[in-house]
Amino acid sequence: MSSHPPLLDLVADDLILVEAKMQATNEVFQPLAEAINLLLHSGGKRIRPSLALLAGRLYAAAERDRVVSLAAAVEMLHSATLVHDDVIDGALLRRGKATLNAAWSPGATILAGDYIFARAASFAAETDNVRVMRIFSETLMTICDGELRQLYAMGNWHQPRDAYYERIYGKTAALFASATESAAVLGNAPEAEIAALRDYGYKVGMAFQIMDDILDFVGDASTVGKPVGNDLRQGTVTLPVFHYMQDNPEALAVMEATSNGHAGADPLGELIADIRRSPAIEATRQEAVQFIADAKALLAGWPDSIYRQALEQVADYVVARTF
Amino acid sequence: MSSHPPLLDLVADDLILVEAKMQATNEVFQPLAEAINLLLHSGGKRIRPSLALLAGRLYAAAERDRVVSLAAAVEMLHSATLVHDDVIDGALLRRGKATLNAAWSPGATILAGDYIFARAASFAAETDNVRVMRIFSETLMTICDGELRQLYAMGNWHQPRDAYYERIYGKTAALFASATESAAVLGNAPEAEIAALRDYGYKVGMAFQIMDDILDFVGDASTVGKPVGNDLRQGTVTLPVFHYMQDNPEALAVMEATSNGHAGADPLGELIADIRRSPAIEATRQEAVQFIADAKALLAGWPDSIYRQALEQVADYVVARTF
Repeated sequence: MSSHPPLLDLVADDLILVEAKMQATNEVFQPLAEAINLLLHSGGKRIRPSLALLAGRLYAAAERDRVVSLAAAVEMLHSATLVHDDVIDGALLRRGKATLNAAWSPGATILAGDYIFARAASFAAETDNVRVMRIFSETLMTICDGELRQLYAMGNWHQPRDAYYERIYGKTAALFASATESAAVLGNAPEAEIAALRDYGYKVGMAFQIMDDILDFVGDASTVGKPVGNDLRQGTVTLPVFHYMQDNPEALAVMEATSNGHAGADPLGELIADIRRSPAIEATRQEAVQFIADAKALLAGWPDSIYRQALEQVADYVVARTF
Repeated sequence: MSSHPPLLDLVADDLILVEAKMQATNEVFQPLAEAINLLLHSGGKRIRPSLALLAGRLYAAAERDRVVSLAAAVEMLHSATLVHDDVIDGALLRRGKATLNAAWSPGATILAGDYIFARAASFAAETDNVRVMRIFSETLMTICDGELRQLYAMGNWHQPRDAYYERIYGKTAALFASATESAAVLGNAPEAEIAALRDYGYKVGMAFQIMDDILDFVGDASTVGKPVGNDLRQGTVTLPVFHYMQDNPEALAVMEATSNGHAGADPLGELIADIRRSPAIEATRQEAVQFIADAKALLAGWPDSIYRQALEQVADYVVARTF
């Protein structure tokens, strides 16, 4: 993580344990082990496990090895969804590196993703906590549900903005929420604190995905690892588009023409360039900033500590990051 | 299940609960719910949940609703693997009915399979037993590992027979084994009985897959739901082929010629017809019969009961079934 929040160093040792845990061992079928280890070295930001580890530090009762297992479960689950996403999109690159999908047949990639899901579930089982495992399986259902909704919504230009928030909850915020919620569960936290930490994770996750959707428009294609405006080109309407359409209702006709095949040279490319330069980007960013402010406000219920400060820093980082 | 073992009626009521549990509720995204319910009505034999339910009946301590959750978890996990298998094979039919893959895009089908995995994991969580959940996640890893090995072994005609047993353990017997093992765990059985019931499930599962591999050669294409000799045509070497090659080493050249593209009219079709008529089929069936005899012998450790008899009947059924 470039210019990462300095207080993340508090859990640097635990993150090393998480990485070691995720590595495939010698017992795994050799081609699969190589694929997993390649995937783990593809430069993820590890923000989800970091949140789990930091939230766990708020509670002396949260045993270190169990929180490490939780953090590994969360990151493995995230990795498995990426593997399947790349098969579904036919993506050959992620973060500028070759995907597993690029090297393997779709069939092998699907099975590798399934294996990584199973490994995530086994890490969740290592927390030895039934409630955490229940949260884990429900989160996976929410994620799949969200991705299916996104797939079905592709090319549907007439949709309410609420459908966007619902989709990014499923796609991203649900896992963030369960990472911090589960850490509180492992800490035997009171129910109100479990709920507040879940909500903190939810809000940070919403902001994270909104920033991702902004970066899809304004990011540098080489660092984001996919072409600018990729979401819109694939038929996915994200928050910047909703903001842009508010002031430019005529954009709808451009999008409809594209999906009807009536497009001229590259009107969608022009629309993407327009959105990129428009105030819609800043209006969208303000929503992310608000989510982060609300997330940090939730932390006010805990006594000031270096770990609470770290959770605040991570939240701030989410809206400051440039890739 | 046509002509099913009569003592299976002992758990008929529980199987109805399992079916009801697996049905998607109104809360699920509508197209996904329809897909799941269609899948559940595609005529599975429900042998795995039946084994879990019957094994649970050996123990008064095994609470009914937990064993029902376990049985649903096992069958949902099996269903999820079928959904992904059909995407991987590009199969449009299963048991003579249209697959989910035939109606949906590959992307949506992959996500539906993931959702069904997650649902299986949530049923496993409903057993409220960490050990069962651990067995569950490990079994899923074993299954994926087995399927990947099978994918890698395709078209590899020179392989030891042991590789076959290893593959069908991963592909089939592992889940049978964990169904009966987990039921014993829920019954607070002594470790020796847990191990014996696991072994019973393992042996029944091995016999089940061997019979499946025989039926691929001798079954009626319309009831098996795929063309005769499909495995060999796809490059998968099964036990009847190993037995046949023992007496007919020249068959190897026919298979090699096929995969090299040097085949004539349909030499593989002739080979399949030869295997179908050969003593290799009966020799293979004898191996399944032996697994079943060994499985039943393991049950001798329990006092005679109607449930033990039912487990014996199910075992016998596995080698008697014709589809």
